[in-house]
Amino acid sequence: MDEEVCRMTELSKELQDSAASLISRSCNEEASLRQRALSLHTSISNLRSSISSSLKKGNLHPQHALKLEEELGRARYLLTQGDAAAFLPTKSHGRFLRMFIGPLNVRATRKDVQLKVKEEYNSFRDRTALLFLVFPLLLLGLRSWTWDGCLPALPVQLYQAWLLFLYTGLALRENILRVNGSDIRPWWIYHHYCAMAMALISMTWEIEKQPDCSQKQKGVQLFLYWAIMQGVAMLLQNRYQRQRLYTRIALGKAQRMDVVWGETSGVDGQLWLLCPILFILQGFEAYVGVLLLQTALVGVVSEWQVITCGILLIVMAAGNFVNTVQTLLTKSRFKAKMKKGKSKD
Amino acid sequence: MDEEVCRMTELSKELQDSAASLISRSCNEEASLRQRALSLHTSISNLRSSISSSLKKGNLHPQHALKLEEELGRARYLLTQGDAAAFLPTKSHGRFLRMFIGPLNVRATRKDVQLKVKEEYNSFRDRTALLFLVFPLLLLGLRSWTWDGCLPALPVQLYQAWLLFLYTGLALRENILRVNGSDIRPWWIYHHYCAMAMALISMTWEIEKQPDCSQKQKGVQLFLYWAIMQGVAMLLQNRYQRQRLYTRIALGKAQRMDVVWGETSGVDGQLWLLCPILFILQGFEAYVGVLLLQTALVGVVSEWQVITCGILLIVMAAGNFVNTVQTLLTKSRFKAKMKKGKSKD
Repeated sequence: MDEEVCRMTELSKELQDSAASLISRSCNEEASLRQRALSLHTSISNLRSSISSSLKKGNLHPQHALKLEEELGRARYLLTQGDAAAFLPTKSHGRFLRMFIGPLNVRATRKDVQLKVKEEYNSFRDRTALLFLVFPLLLLGLRSWTWDGCLPALPVQLYQAWLLFLYTGLALRENILRVNGSDIRPWWIYHHYCAMAMALISMTWEIEKQPDCSQKQKGVQLFLYWAIMQGVAMLLQNRYQRQRLYTRIALGKAQRMDVVWGETSGVDGQLWLLCPILFILQGFEAYVGVLLLQTALVGVVSEWQVITCGILLIVMAAGNFVNTVQTLLTKSRFKAKMKKGKSKD
Repeated sequence: MDEEVCRMTELSKELQDSAASLISRSCNEEASLRQRALSLHTSISNLRSSISSSLKKGNLHPQHALKLEEELGRARYLLTQGDAAAFLPTKSHGRFLRMFIGPLNVRATRKDVQLKVKEEYNSFRDRTALLFLVFPLLLLGLRSWTWDGCLPALPVQLYQAWLLFLYTGLALRENILRVNGSDIRPWWIYHHYCAMAMALISMTWEIEKQPDCSQKQKGVQLFLYWAIMQGVAMLLQNRYQRQRLYTRIALGKAQRMDVVWGETSGVDGQLWLLCPILFILQGFEAYVGVLLLQTALVGVVSEWQVITCGILLIVMAAGNFVNTVQTLLTKSRFKAKMKKGKSKD
């Protein structure tokens, strides 16, 4: 038994030494890779700008410049999409993430871990899209069947609490994806901050205890209708986006961590189905906002919650619209460029 | 320029290769270390139980057994507290963490990163302890100076929203610390889930619009008094805990990731100051809970929020009390054992 104990002591010392050496070794190697990746990234950018400046000065034949740029693009692609990408300087974590989970490093080095995070984000969205449909349908159904046209406060507040949790989770996950190299548009994250604020505010909004509840609950009803539409749109988006992401990954165009929140998703044919739905949704969102403001200004319900929610809805609708249009423009510009490139060949 | 572009392509290929090889190499080495650490951990436990069973059978002299156990304890300590600890199987992430941030790995391999996470948790608690004092003091002050003894709903709701954010942040951070090897008692995390629920519920609680607000706001007032006491206790706790943690680290007794939420903190002399404060706080917490239940049952305010908050407060007070007592008992038992060990020498 003495021997055994001695062996254990020996083994634990050995293990401690190998662990310490592995950790310090990989720290050093990672640091050197980080330096190399950064300097290569800078050199490529510098070379790129010097090519375009010589092209402008006429020192370089356009055909030649195009060839050089293409080759440089390939080098850049390998650097930013390959395994070395994990060692490029990361986007900052952002205040939101730091507020909730502190200075923890949320970047995954291994591609398969990154992919797992992305996959889980997609399945989280799938699950929530279904609930996005079910909850408001249930509330509206119960309202006409058993609640005599008047929503009680508690179920609506439970629904708002769920929305708050959902938007917080989405915002956290999207921030994490951004740190891991996704190029999600910042607006879609801000949009979720607005939605969090709205869910929080709606929870404090008294919708019961009025002589005439139908007047007061008009806004809530419209919001529920909008939520149902949103649920349908989310389900469509999720399907199309996955399809498009897999196509793009197969074509080598997209990073695996890409999240293109809804608006640009779908292969072309499907885009013509999605776009009208999205624009109608945004219009309806703004309409609900204006209606809320109207009721507040006419004086039926002058609670601050009504005014703030109205403003938030209009801001979100406007932001969504601008970002959808911008994405579509980028898309069509990209396509035109592609066509030009092809016709040149 | 052609040469430069060629060089960039070459460099990016090289970098990709070194990155890929580093990642796969450290993956393999980590996996082997994980295996070794796990098997050593099991062997040590087995050996320990076989020592105690031979001691019972009388095959081993007690003095000898003690010596063996001590040596085994040192081996175990090196394994679980040294660099190899990062390769032992981790505690599961828990549903709460997965709900909010997905399947992301939140475990830090390097000790200095772990320490940074812990340090940030401490400073987060310091900052919030101050606000814990300031907010309720401000609310109560404004109430008597400018609000004529009646709290308006909005500032109280803002305060509750802040509490919700604070408790969510604390619960997330503590879950992360747990994954990183802290042995925080699970109750302190559950306690924060309860506090989150209470903050959410209080937000929906209508405290305005009553003929007699003083009756209705009694619970809120008591809660604010309790929050002030809590703020003072947190400040004291934070100071003492840091001191104790540093002492224990210096003595080699504690893991760096230890969080001993308040109740066990303080070097001995300070414990006699903290303990009464903590017990008074817990008593006051339960008293506020009972008072809320009373108002609900007598029928002055029969909203469900009052009843639920009352029950939650009593549950939290009871849980805090049980856990504080358990920790104190463990502490005194440990001390008795130490004394016995010393007197033997």
